[in-house]
Amino acid sequence: MSKIGNAAVKLFNERGYLETTMDEISSAAKMSKGGIYHYFLTKSEILFFILNNFMDLLLEGLEEKLDGVEGDLEKIKFLIYRHIEYHTKYPSVSKTLLQQGHLLRSEYKTIAEKEKKYYQLVASVLSDFWGGRIEKERLTAITFTLFGMCNWIYSWYNPKGPVTAQELSEIIYQIFTRGIDQSPIFKKPKN
Amino acid sequence: MSKIGNAAVKLFNERGYLETTMDEISSAAKMSKGGIYHYFLTKSEILFFILNNFMDLLLEGLEEKLDGVEGDLEKIKFLIYRHIEYHTKYPSVSKTLLQQGHLLRSEYKTIAEKEKKYYQLVASVLSDFWGGRIEKERLTAITFTLFGMCNWIYSWYNPKGPVTAQELSEIIYQIFTRGIDQSPIFKKPKN
Repeated sequence: MSKIGNAAVKLFNERGYLETTMDEISSAAKMSKGGIYHYFLTKSEILFFILNNFMDLLLEGLEEKLDGVEGDLEKIKFLIYRHIEYHTKYPSVSKTLLQQGHLLRSEYKTIAEKEKKYYQLVASVLSDFWGGRIEKERLTAITFTLFGMCNWIYSWYNPKGPVTAQELSEIIYQIFTRGIDQSPIFKKPKN
Repeated sequence: MSKIGNAAVKLFNERGYLETTMDEISSAAKMSKGGIYHYFLTKSEILFFILNNFMDLLLEGLEEKLDGVEGDLEKIKFLIYRHIEYHTKYPSVSKTLLQQGHLLRSEYKTIAEKEKKYYQLVASVLSDFWGGRIEKERLTAITFTLFGMCNWIYSWYNPKGPVTAQELSEIIYQIFTRGIDQSPIFKKPKN
């Protein structure tokens, strides 16, 4: 199944989910169409399989791991590093989720529920940073701003380029917590 | 032409660019198909028209206005407020550009060139903040992180909701320059 998923996600990214046909997936996966239909009846089942697996991976053991991290800022750091790690390790799946996930239409509901759970875990860590005393709307804006910093990498970041996933995580963590004007890693050179 | 563009962009967002037909655009714009074909021969010409206009709007007078703003942080603030203003004023166009712009395929080149120009203006303001003394790869990561914070709003922000575009701009500006741990606007309540 993952052989089909891997071939499909590559095509979804290169050609687009809607433009990709089952014939192309079958040919890319080097399997007969009958072989594919044994596992998946429709293209949307393949997309669902890929995205659902990725969300399960993101959520797996997350709460327990967070409990083991001491300190509000350290928890935020852990979340950013982990998010960037998974999204850069599986860039095609990440891009498909963020750019084309909505094309699943009604089947997207299950994915959206898992995304919501993930969002709530992150928002709750951020809320704890303010001791829970932060306006709901403000917390929403801050949480999605953090997601924006992390998720947008699908549009520009090259995992094989000069900036490692760890360096990227540190840049995002430093901006989010201290900003370019206050973080020591962005210190201006002295004249 | 803008009547067609407005009707089309609404459909592209609700139903998707690929799924939308010229018939639907004609019906939503309350124009005959002949009337539409007078202006646009294909659906991709409509999408191009919408996105190209938006990029022109974003770039119009930007360099001159930036020149009139004193101070590196003030220039960054100006860019963030302006970006959020335009993207929240035209949320459907913004979302279509960021989520479906790539569907233009080869015609996307012109849009991509204008996006690049916009990117370079922002990157150059950021570079000035470090007196030009910042590694290229680092500058790229920081610039796209800022774009991520600003662009991601297409996926969550409701211009009619409780957070105004100005409040959102200030949140993003404060996070980007001082972070949640250093900016006075995110001060933790005293126990």
